[in-house]
Amino acid sequence: MAKRQQVAQQESFRSMTPSQFFYEYREVAGFGSPSRALYQTVRELVENALDATDVHGILPDITLVIEQIPEHPSYYRITVEDNGIGIQPQHVPYAFGQVLYSSKYKLRQARGRFGLGAKMAILYGQIKTGQPVEVYTSPIGSSKIYFFRIKIDIERNKPIVLAKGEYPNPSGWHGTRVSVVIEGDWPRARHRVHEYIRRTAIAAPYANITFIDPDGNITVYHRTIDKLPKQPREVKPHPQGVDIELLKQLIRKSKATTLLEFLIDAFQGVGRKTAEAFLDWAGFDKNLDPHKLDDRKLEKLARKLREYQRFRPPSADALSPFGPEIIEAGLRTILKPEFVAAVTRRPRAYEGHSFIVEVGIAYGGQIPPSSEPILLRYANKIPLLYDEKSDVAWKVVDPKNFDWRNYLVVFPAPVAVLTHIASTKVPYKGVGKESVADVPEIEQELRNALREAARKLREYLLQKKKEEEAKKRVITFMKYTPEIAKSLATILKDYSVDENSIREMLLTAMKKRLRIEDEKFAKLVEGLEVNIEE
Amino acid sequence: MAKRQQVAQQESFRSMTPSQFFYEYREVAGFGSPSRALYQTVRELVENALDATDVHGILPDITLVIEQIPEHPSYYRITVEDNGIGIQPQHVPYAFGQVLYSSKYKLRQARGRFGLGAKMAILYGQIKTGQPVEVYTSPIGSSKIYFFRIKIDIERNKPIVLAKGEYPNPSGWHGTRVSVVIEGDWPRARHRVHEYIRRTAIAAPYANITFIDPDGNITVYHRTIDKLPKQPREVKPHPQGVDIELLKQLIRKSKATTLLEFLIDAFQGVGRKTAEAFLDWAGFDKNLDPHKLDDRKLEKLARKLREYQRFRPPSADALSPFGPEIIEAGLRTILKPEFVAAVTRRPRAYEGHSFIVEVGIAYGGQIPPSSEPILLRYANKIPLLYDEKSDVAWKVVDPKNFDWRNYLVVFPAPVAVLTHIASTKVPYKGVGKESVADVPEIEQELRNALREAARKLREYLLQKKKEEEAKKRVITFMKYTPEIAKSLATILKDYSVDENSIREMLLTAMKKRLRIEDEKFAKLVEGLEVNIEE
Repeated sequence: MAKRQQVAQQESFRSMTPSQFFYEYREVAGFGSPSRALYQTVRELVENALDATDVHGILPDITLVIEQIPEHPSYYRITVEDNGIGIQPQHVPYAFGQVLYSSKYKLRQARGRFGLGAKMAILYGQIKTGQPVEVYTSPIGSSKIYFFRIKIDIERNKPIVLAKGEYPNPSGWHGTRVSVVIEGDWPRARHRVHEYIRRTAIAAPYANITFIDPDGNITVYHRTIDKLPKQPREVKPHPQGVDIELLKQLIRKSKATTLLEFLIDAFQGVGRKTAEAFLDWAGFDKNLDPHKLDDRKLEKLARKLREYQRFRPPSADALSPFGPEIIEAGLRTILKPEFVAAVTRRPRAYEGHSFIVEVGIAYGGQIPPSSEPILLRYANKIPLLYDEKSDVAWKVVDPKNFDWRNYLVVFPAPVAVLTHIASTKVPYKGVGKESVADVPEIEQELRNALREAARKLREYLLQKKKEEEAKKRVITFMKYTPEIAKSLATILKDYSVDENSIREMLLTAMKKRLRIEDEKFAKLVEGLEVNIEE
Repeated sequence: MAKRQQVAQQESFRSMTPSQFFYEYREVAGFGSPSRALYQTVRELVENALDATDVHGILPDITLVIEQIPEHPSYYRITVEDNGIGIQPQHVPYAFGQVLYSSKYKLRQARGRFGLGAKMAILYGQIKTGQPVEVYTSPIGSSKIYFFRIKIDIERNKPIVLAKGEYPNPSGWHGTRVSVVIEGDWPRARHRVHEYIRRTAIAAPYANITFIDPDGNITVYHRTIDKLPKQPREVKPHPQGVDIELLKQLIRKSKATTLLEFLIDAFQGVGRKTAEAFLDWAGFDKNLDPHKLDDRKLEKLARKLREYQRFRPPSADALSPFGPEIIEAGLRTILKPEFVAAVTRRPRAYEGHSFIVEVGIAYGGQIPPSSEPILLRYANKIPLLYDEKSDVAWKVVDPKNFDWRNYLVVFPAPVAVLTHIASTKVPYKGVGKESVADVPEIEQELRNALREAARKLREYLLQKKKEEEAKKRVITFMKYTPEIAKSLATILKDYSVDENSIREMLLTAMKKRLRIEDEKFAKLVEGLEVNIEE
């Protein structure tokens, strides 16, 4: 007993800063091995670069350079430069040197959300190679370019600025250039990094992306369209996504003196009428001061807001889907299929967050037949490459759950599916942003979108089948035509009808019979010579 | 341009506390939906209860009660009581009211690690139902029982103690009782919660576990053995798992004045000889003061420690595997198979963390045939129920990657595999602790363990096949014996040998021929009457 007592008293507790936590458990953020860390670093920096440009109405020009450090072959310098909005110099130390500090904690669609990604790359580089991050940045309209060299004080979660400087900016450059040195494994990461950049370029055809890799390969993805997609706007929270904590935060920020005003002021899509109807239904006096609600009342208000079924659905202003054209063009570029179809569904919501689901299907052509569909996942325009089988999109397209035969697809088949979930909050399963949780509303929408796209594929395959049958009949007919023509010519020789004319007549009769136009017929018999000569 | 400039200047940054972060992204910790949250709450509280007992040499008595709150049918109170070491009262507010505060940030095998789980349940309950956590605790040997009612100040990540009290403790009770009220979905969580408790009980046959569920069912898992497994001890870090940050921390804590002393003092398995050989190899003066190393030297020292191949492998003192007996007993209890085999591999290491892999195989009996193996995953004695397909264990047992036919298993087959990874750091893919990353060293050990266990299965199946063939031959023989005996009796009637004696002689000859012992023969012909009579 004495010994146990000692144990109990020795049991020591300690607290951790967020940077200590993510330092200890870096693998949950995608920094578990050198190859994965290299991939993840590229992702985080490129996604920040895109979030600094297209979200703010700027056509992106992005350069990614990965270099091997000659003295230490397992160390790599990764540099990403964008022409984005830049960062005000007073924010730079925190934006790069403090975990959980971000401009992205907002209700609008953005690639990043956790305020974690770039800092994880910096932290990982720092603990493995000892190298700080280097940042050059110039906010739009600034006459200066600012330079910083920063480390993270992990125990305190604070930036350490090792060096800083200012340079004149005569050319009016704006944007950010970030450089980190990490322990990496390029040979193992090569394939995924190239695939990631390729798929990113396909999802952002309005961007110029230049990628110089450690092997010296230069890959340039040129802008193919000059129009940016609709920019996502920041929106107010939706009442159905509310909990007690959010309610408290909103009340603290609000100057409203009555519940009625507060609801109209704090939430999206709530006008006077809706607010009055809700308060009446929920049993609240509309003139109550929201700042004076006690915990019980707050709990009730939050619960009633979640339960009320008559709020307007969440706004899609904060969302920016691809649209079917970009998806179809993307699929053609990646897969060179014989058929593509894409569907963009209307906005829906889960827990107060709006989302839009998009699905594209590609079939045949250069797609290799496989026992399962090839799946290309995107979330808020980010390609997702890891943990496919635990993603809600896989659950939906999996032949175990989706009856592909209804759509005339029998595996092994040459079929690929692209999925995109655009949302103010993509419900990732982890902070590494690799797979999306199976939220019922999203799963259902994915299934609906897949059905819609698969119906188009079905039509195409039906049509194709019909044509193949027609072709078969033509072939059979053509095979016997010379014989028949010859016989008829012999029979009719007194009437001086020559074989060729008879052949022509027979073909015309057949075309009429099969209702095939001349053009189509020419296509059908194209390349059939060998068969016909048999 | 003016508008863009405005945008750039408006871009606002903010920082988050860990509790705000995990509040916003609670789904990454397993609190994404009411049903999942209910399951996750049970897990976190039960795992804490076990970590407070068996890890400290106490046979666990654990009670779990889930009650529906009558006024709000979607609210549930979850209470877990243990007979563990208890918590010193001065730690209680932080242990339950501050995210990332824990006694578990140590190098020894424990179920919890993140210092996050119970707090997530408390936080989730608080934001949905407004209810605080209630804690009763008494450290071993304490004359008092302490009571606390606590909320989390999410914006500051600090505990708010709403109430506290002390009671006399005449019976000498020790342990902790925690109660939270959360929004849940029992009908959807029921199956997983029961399965989780069942599998936990199987993994801890030395525990009494009582579970009262909201339907009023009382399930009691009685202790079946009185012996605790070997207790894991806290160990020093292994030099191969070192990075610059850890090195700095160790130096800061160390009183050593030379590099030589520091290495011996700070790392496991490093004696004077090893330390000298390493420093010589790495090119460091052994008399250098570790506190005076600059960043370049630190980077070099950390890198060389990682690269040196001649350190002793990490110690397994910190680990506590199941052992083959517990695994085999567990598989028999869960699956009622006809055959089981289990393997506990020797300790190995990845990145300075020791680990032990165990694999059990069960075959036939009441296991239903399936196109894939049934997989039961454990990590540090926790059953893992979600995200199976993204777990390294699935990757290893997947018939696409493992050639089961080599071991005479052809799918569909009635086969189940249990895997256990015990480690000072299980490389979970997420903070929800649901799937393990495919660290190459662990993957390889799992594969070796599976092969080893599968070879035993193969032997069994070979033996079974042999016996079936023997049985077939016996049947064939037995079928004709009466006929032959009759004929022989007729032929030999002058020698007055009766039919029965001839039959006996024939049987004896056959047994000799087939080399079957009497006992085995009896077993083979058991129930064959019908066939023989044909």
